[in-house]
Amino acid sequence: MKKKIDARKNLRRIILNLHQYTAGRSIQEIAVKYKIDPKKILKVGSNENVLGSSQKALKAAKNALDRVNIYPQVASDDLANKLKKIYKLKHVDVFAGNGMDHIFEMLARLFLNNGDETIICPPTFSCYELATLWSGAKPIFVPLLKPDYQLDVKNILKKINKKTKIIFLCSPNNPTGNSMKLRDIKAILESTDKIVFLDEAYTEFGNRPLARWVDKYPNLVIGRTFSKIYGLAGLRIGYAFMHKSLGTYYKNSITPFVVSTVAQAAAISALDDKEFLNKTRKMVKLGKKYYYKELKKAGIKFLSSNANFIAINTAPLKGKSVTDKLMQKGIITRECSAFGKGGENLVRITIGTKEQNKRVMKELKDIFV
Amino acid sequence: MKKKIDARKNLRRIILNLHQYTAGRSIQEIAVKYKIDPKKILKVGSNENVLGSSQKALKAAKNALDRVNIYPQVASDDLANKLKKIYKLKHVDVFAGNGMDHIFEMLARLFLNNGDETIICPPTFSCYELATLWSGAKPIFVPLLKPDYQLDVKNILKKINKKTKIIFLCSPNNPTGNSMKLRDIKAILESTDKIVFLDEAYTEFGNRPLARWVDKYPNLVIGRTFSKIYGLAGLRIGYAFMHKSLGTYYKNSITPFVVSTVAQAAAISALDDKEFLNKTRKMVKLGKKYYYKELKKAGIKFLSSNANFIAINTAPLKGKSVTDKLMQKGIITRECSAFGKGGENLVRITIGTKEQNKRVMKELKDIFV
Repeated sequence: MKKKIDARKNLRRIILNLHQYTAGRSIQEIAVKYKIDPKKILKVGSNENVLGSSQKALKAAKNALDRVNIYPQVASDDLANKLKKIYKLKHVDVFAGNGMDHIFEMLARLFLNNGDETIICPPTFSCYELATLWSGAKPIFVPLLKPDYQLDVKNILKKINKKTKIIFLCSPNNPTGNSMKLRDIKAILESTDKIVFLDEAYTEFGNRPLARWVDKYPNLVIGRTFSKIYGLAGLRIGYAFMHKSLGTYYKNSITPFVVSTVAQAAAISALDDKEFLNKTRKMVKLGKKYYYKELKKAGIKFLSSNANFIAINTAPLKGKSVTDKLMQKGIITRECSAFGKGGENLVRITIGTKEQNKRVMKELKDIFV
Repeated sequence: MKKKIDARKNLRRIILNLHQYTAGRSIQEIAVKYKIDPKKILKVGSNENVLGSSQKALKAAKNALDRVNIYPQVASDDLANKLKKIYKLKHVDVFAGNGMDHIFEMLARLFLNNGDETIICPPTFSCYELATLWSGAKPIFVPLLKPDYQLDVKNILKKINKKTKIIFLCSPNNPTGNSMKLRDIKAILESTDKIVFLDEAYTEFGNRPLARWVDKYPNLVIGRTFSKIYGLAGLRIGYAFMHKSLGTYYKNSITPFVVSTVAQAAAISALDDKEFLNKTRKMVKLGKKYYYKELKKAGIKFLSSNANFIAINTAPLKGKSVTDKLMQKGIITRECSAFGKGGENLVRITIGTKEQNKRVMKELKDIFV
């Protein structure tokens, strides 16, 4: 006699309380929801490169399709070696991941037991919290200090205890766009042996990359991505700089074949495409200048940004009411309530071309002025 | 005064004991090691499709490159919907993963706390053990019964206790190639509420796929892949059938954007390429017939296979000594000690074209006869 099976009782308790990930909206989704011709929809919600992808990368990707019946390099060695060469790193290993998300999952695998703690500084990228929760660890939140959204170093250090394993930092921070002060990052690194993870997804838009710091601070791990300036979000590839003393363990625990052949090939070639990078940087720089001027003129509050996006402060309006209105006009931006405390009144807008930025500004004025 | 940082003390204890994943050897690797022209190396070690990839899939993949600056669908909905339609599933959800490995990691995320147990039946695919260990859970081994490598149902059921969360089955089994008896799988499903994961990576080569069983057994999860018959190993895409009662939780915990745009597009088109599948099946069928005949003639022991590979029994020789000799001749096969107890004397050979099979047989005869 077969009893009725309830497979749910095998679920971990932590899983029962999760909600679906709040992703940026897609053109497909908005086209259906608001009955808008997809061609007329402008997506400036996910900080993708509106200029497309590096053509060099695409050419390499296309060639790589000829051999996708074969498994990829098990740990993306060619790409890792190229990056080590570029950054002239001695005591630092490089590991590629299936997007930077996979780097977070690897950090969780390496460092987080059930019951451990991580420190997260909201408003910031929500995936640090997810990786923490999935591991059965507990995120401890130390909000960025207003009005500049800088690190609350004193409180971060105060929250460190025996259970703490990883401190997640993001610079330039997503979604506020500002870079963290180097002296603050340094102060944290000088004060603790805990893993300090620094997300540099947007560093190519203006920051000095801190890869070399890993030589000096073996507890520093840096995450990077090909999804932003390189325009390869759809291929899923990111990477990490990690001190050799940890690298061995990372290598022993890495998911085999985690990055596709096509993504590895594209990334290797993208690194050589200085022209595409410069073109993108120039567009983003001009775009931010335009936004700063026009937002100021319109009396809309905003945060200065070192990334390829700009966050406007919609208070007293909720960010969501603003993004909803923009969506009805066929413009996808990102409201930031999913980025944690302090995100409810922020709307993140990816810098686009001159025409795209103008279109966004026109609608913003209609909403705010 | 800065003390010397030892970041390693943050590592989880389980990570300290892991060894690097034993992947099948690549052509690149062997070319360097044995100084052989890569063009002369035959790779029949990783059960890839020697006929290449579905051309329909490659065409779709190429087109998808035009939009890789944009993030992929967050949970591969188009592919999932297509698979649901093909299999006419009512109470079953479909989830795509970054290769089937990502499905294992998701199972671990959903079900495994530190200290839990899984049941694994060696010799079999080593990634079940890895996913278990990474979660801080403990693999309990119940070896397949010799000489037929069938499930030891009685012992599997005996090992189930409060800590048991997942029972990993593989049919056709990797590396032995035989299908598990349906009545054994059923007996396990009828006797327990624990999650039963069935790896059907090779099912397209002869098995009846069991997707419909998930309707009846909500604790059954089935894994599938595009890496084998579809020839898309380099793109990293697999998927799972899971009962809707668990699907909600899977959806809430899935890594966002885990499958690349290119892989999603290729997979959707590959499903329509019946011609490529039939051509592959025919080649594999003829190839196995050839091997059976020739191996018998040569007095080399082997196991009958329902997959696209064949395992030969090298006893009293170690499998490794045989694969090493083949490698010196430019032929990559797979010795199976990494597949757990019982794998030391097995060598797994992917079925190739007529000419490829002949080349392998010639060298095997030189070694054994």
